[in-house]
Amino acid sequence: MTCGDCTAPSGKNYSIDPAVNELLKKAEQEKILTAWDRYEQQRPLCGFGELGICCRNCLQGPCRINPFGEPKAGICGADADLIVARNLLRMVTGGSASHTDHAYSAIQCLRLITEGKAEYDLKGKDKIASVAAKLGITTHGKKDAEVAHEIAMTALQDFGNFTEEPMRWLRASAPAERVEVWKNLGVLPRNPDREMRTAMHKTAMGVDGSPLNLLLAAVKSGLIDGYAGLQMGTDIQDIIFGIPKPAKSAANLGVLERDKVNIIVHGHMPEVSDKVVEWAEKLEGDAKAAGAAGINVAGICCSGNEVLMRRGVPVAGNFLSQELAVITGAVDAMVVDVQCFMPSLPKVAACYHTKIITTQDIARLPDAEHISLTPENADSQAQKIIGAAIEAYKKRDARRVQIPAHKVEAWGGFSVEAIVGALAKVDPKNPLKPLVDNIVSGAIKGAVGVVGCNNVKVTQDAFHAELVKDLLAHDVLVVATGCSAQGLAKYGFLNPEGAKQYAGPGLLAVLTAVGEAAGLGGPLPPVLHMGSCVDNSRIGDLLSALAGYLKVSTKDLPVAASAPELQHEKAVSIGVWAVALGLLTHISLPPPVLGSSLVTKILTNDIEGLTGGKFYVEADPHKAAQGILSHIRHKRANLGI
Amino acid sequence: MTCGDCTAPSGKNYSIDPAVNELLKKAEQEKILTAWDRYEQQRPLCGFGELGICCRNCLQGPCRINPFGEPKAGICGADADLIVARNLLRMVTGGSASHTDHAYSAIQCLRLITEGKAEYDLKGKDKIASVAAKLGITTHGKKDAEVAHEIAMTALQDFGNFTEEPMRWLRASAPAERVEVWKNLGVLPRNPDREMRTAMHKTAMGVDGSPLNLLLAAVKSGLIDGYAGLQMGTDIQDIIFGIPKPAKSAANLGVLERDKVNIIVHGHMPEVSDKVVEWAEKLEGDAKAAGAAGINVAGICCSGNEVLMRRGVPVAGNFLSQELAVITGAVDAMVVDVQCFMPSLPKVAACYHTKIITTQDIARLPDAEHISLTPENADSQAQKIIGAAIEAYKKRDARRVQIPAHKVEAWGGFSVEAIVGALAKVDPKNPLKPLVDNIVSGAIKGAVGVVGCNNVKVTQDAFHAELVKDLLAHDVLVVATGCSAQGLAKYGFLNPEGAKQYAGPGLLAVLTAVGEAAGLGGPLPPVLHMGSCVDNSRIGDLLSALAGYLKVSTKDLPVAASAPELQHEKAVSIGVWAVALGLLTHISLPPPVLGSSLVTKILTNDIEGLTGGKFYVEADPHKAAQGILSHIRHKRANLGI
Repeated sequence: MTCGDCTAPSGKNYSIDPAVNELLKKAEQEKILTAWDRYEQQRPLCGFGELGICCRNCLQGPCRINPFGEPKAGICGADADLIVARNLLRMVTGGSASHTDHAYSAIQCLRLITEGKAEYDLKGKDKIASVAAKLGITTHGKKDAEVAHEIAMTALQDFGNFTEEPMRWLRASAPAERVEVWKNLGVLPRNPDREMRTAMHKTAMGVDGSPLNLLLAAVKSGLIDGYAGLQMGTDIQDIIFGIPKPAKSAANLGVLERDKVNIIVHGHMPEVSDKVVEWAEKLEGDAKAAGAAGINVAGICCSGNEVLMRRGVPVAGNFLSQELAVITGAVDAMVVDVQCFMPSLPKVAACYHTKIITTQDIARLPDAEHISLTPENADSQAQKIIGAAIEAYKKRDARRVQIPAHKVEAWGGFSVEAIVGALAKVDPKNPLKPLVDNIVSGAIKGAVGVVGCNNVKVTQDAFHAELVKDLLAHDVLVVATGCSAQGLAKYGFLNPEGAKQYAGPGLLAVLTAVGEAAGLGGPLPPVLHMGSCVDNSRIGDLLSALAGYLKVSTKDLPVAASAPELQHEKAVSIGVWAVALGLLTHISLPPPVLGSSLVTKILTNDIEGLTGGKFYVEADPHKAAQGILSHIRHKRANLGI
Repeated sequence: MTCGDCTAPSGKNYSIDPAVNELLKKAEQEKILTAWDRYEQQRPLCGFGELGICCRNCLQGPCRINPFGEPKAGICGADADLIVARNLLRMVTGGSASHTDHAYSAIQCLRLITEGKAEYDLKGKDKIASVAAKLGITTHGKKDAEVAHEIAMTALQDFGNFTEEPMRWLRASAPAERVEVWKNLGVLPRNPDREMRTAMHKTAMGVDGSPLNLLLAAVKSGLIDGYAGLQMGTDIQDIIFGIPKPAKSAANLGVLERDKVNIIVHGHMPEVSDKVVEWAEKLEGDAKAAGAAGINVAGICCSGNEVLMRRGVPVAGNFLSQELAVITGAVDAMVVDVQCFMPSLPKVAACYHTKIITTQDIARLPDAEHISLTPENADSQAQKIIGAAIEAYKKRDARRVQIPAHKVEAWGGFSVEAIVGALAKVDPKNPLKPLVDNIVSGAIKGAVGVVGCNNVKVTQDAFHAELVKDLLAHDVLVVATGCSAQGLAKYGFLNPEGAKQYAGPGLLAVLTAVGEAAGLGGPLPPVLHMGSCVDNSRIGDLLSALAGYLKVSTKDLPVAASAPELQHEKAVSIGVWAVALGLLTHISLPPPVLGSSLVTKILTNDIEGLTGGKFYVEADPHKAAQGILSHIRHKRANLGI
């Protein structure tokens, strides 16, 4: 693979994943279309849409701006700057709403558990104390469930907040210095839902005509994503499902097992995936009675990450692997909840025996089986799901099964608590000291969070892998989440061997020292898998802890973020949050903003003067690595290290 | 004007309004572009967008469906049905969010008033009792402000509702029969903000893949518009600003006065427009000191409707007249708040002395003066606005002033309370009886609400006027709101003379009897102006009262709705609410759904089996009138009358 592989796939250069490439041949033979085929059919894409200068927000248009001449304004008079800013705010709001709605499901689940109405336990009792502490909820003399109930109600209060006070969860979670910066910018959200409603209003015809005002609202929406989406989501999910701890597993489609009932959990909600894993274990006997050797659950997208992080469940693949998983012919059921499952799945599954099972009433698929799983009925519905998978297994056609022999050891579970726990083995009194000392000494140059999706416009996984290789070789610690982490897993970045293969000498020494102190008998993986996309809040927490320890702002740390293959609106809203935190945030594909030089300049330049962060667009992974390394050197110099 | 005039204006056949046509010539001479010029520049419009088959909800696309061949699916696999349904839900959500955010401002204003923090009185004390009664709030022994505070808090509770209970305001306002229908469809909103957040989530990439599920969510979003937007908005605004009573005024650009300071209030929030009118009266002396004969406030769009309804302030024009008002050269300040003010205004105003003044922090214009008006500072800021207008007046260039001599008597203020009050003069014990008796006898055949916007795609006001002429001639009572009412005002439909000119004999007799009994000395206007777009809830209330009196469902009444020149997302969401109420809802321009025969069929046909209502698309006003009349005859026959 050379650098040119990473952008605009053409020919059949779609993925660097050997399992995917093997199955794409099977798909071709079996005449099954995948996302890449549909991408070819869609090309060339509409340039107006790509530039963000198409407006469909009223019934007079649609209007579009001609970047090279007239018209320069839509029917109402909106120019390119306004149209781009409005579209971007709606896009960020789509992302924030997705994450917030996800978190809200977790909050409701926690409330119902603590009211004795939900079929889940509280497995993260240690998290109850820490979340209560940051929210200022007293715990003395109270039972865990009582405190957890107060936590759930505190979250819900943010959603009912009609005052001008900013969100309590944000104030409790973000560094005080950042809260002050955001306050001065006027972008502190009060109530996530209320701000999103206003964002939709602002972007309607004849409301906000100021691109700057709209971009500030987009920053506010990014903070909603960061604190009502990611932070609430992760905090509450940890309380329900437990704080992740490092666990060894495996990644890529080779994790499917020929003689077992294979169930893929796909989507984002651990309420679904965790229950499916729980009942798959309990109903192993049913599978055996049906002639299988047992039940094998594997994950795709963030559902996969959630159960990898907490249960060591193997990863079948990331976003662009989902259709190929079905095309193995070995998946008996694919259980989806919300987000990132392609509407194409039932069509692909119709060529096999695979059952696509939807579980959330807000997210149906016309030709899928719907088993509505709620906090109140999770056990019985999860049993039905397992039953449906076993039934489907009986219809599996062994002649059409092709499981690629690609499977790589991968470690997950690096929550902040786990990372601090490992560091505490080196310095129990001052766990962050070993990490900071090594950053100060230059053994570790800095840290980068590599996150986000796959996108058909970029060769699958190529940018993730190439960028991370360069960063590690230059002694930069990499943490990863989401489809990025799953992509990196496939190439050995998430196992201890990968440290020896990829890490520069300074980084390798630290990874080895910490790994051995933590009893792993070798180095930590060079890329620490911190979880799902909502778990990006863990990266925020780690940065806050480091900034607090060093008594500097998060914007001054020698760190950066990258979402090299971003695809979903959620990736854009997370990116805005990262920029608000003060991070250089690399992306390889720009969101649809290039039609406005004003908006582009603000996002990639001017905003640095406001938050300390900015977007950095670079389509070549090696150049992107250089840009990030240069940023890290600059931040180090400013810190005098 | 012939029928062909009403669609796809070409040449210079943009408007039937003589004042607009006169000023379009001035605009041409002065080389100032208007919305119509920009429309010409935009043509031909993008067909993918018009059909609704363009998707920009992730960064893989944009994708579009080829209605005549391949591709039939976007990159993720979404087909035309799914893309259209998702886009429609986002559009309806944009409309609902706009109205709900508007209502929320009124709620907050009421809360602040009742907490002694806002510079407004409570002028609608009679409304406090009726709203409290429907919400089940006891009033005995409580002061008005206390009850009003409880009302505001009850509204806010709906926005914080985390239970599965439907919105209390909806349950208190909608007919029980309808609530049952909506419950069975699963479309009852619990908390408006929460449902809108979920709507944004559902429409994100890889979430809801079911067009039907998405359309049901659109119905839910329409109910949010109806009850959290329109109903809350109107109820609360009546409490603050008073229940409208019939008042004589005038309409069209001839209401501007050459020797006075002319201030246009434009937008939607009576918090702004009412205060401007109040202080314009109080500061008349300042204007005289500056050499003017006084201050003349006139309205455009729903701000105009709000102050016409309650203060008899004249109407300068509707949506498409806004730029022309500036082009008269006689407008010293145009004060905008939220919604429907064109971003082009500062550019047009820059050719004159006119000051464009924005007042809401969520809705700025880069080249306008911003005077932030909140409930807490309304008096001082309104004074600043008047001061700015007087300053601008001093710079007015009399040589460039051209006020068209078109001005027509127009009556506003027909709230449900006012209509029932007028009917009570005929039958004090049973006020609805005279109306119902006349419907039963056939003197009145039925009633139609003609509402909505202007749209450059339709000759301004032509469809409103032609449709209403036909309906009135066939003894159909017409009520109107929004830009439709303002358009109809220009052609004499809102004055008693208009009854003689347009009403059929049966209708004329009833209008005359009621008008004379109510002491108007002649007939009521043939079109009753019921207010702004949020005041469409008044039409809903009237229908509920009639249905209740007759003990039938609203869907069984011989009534219909029409938004013939719809333009804004709000018009689409109001339309969905009307369909949910069971109304035949005529539109002349389809929303962008024609790319999906499934969605089109559901909206124009199948949904009738669910709610009793449906959309009816007809681009010819006379055929539309025939279609509506036939529907009314059908409903009459079903009622056996």
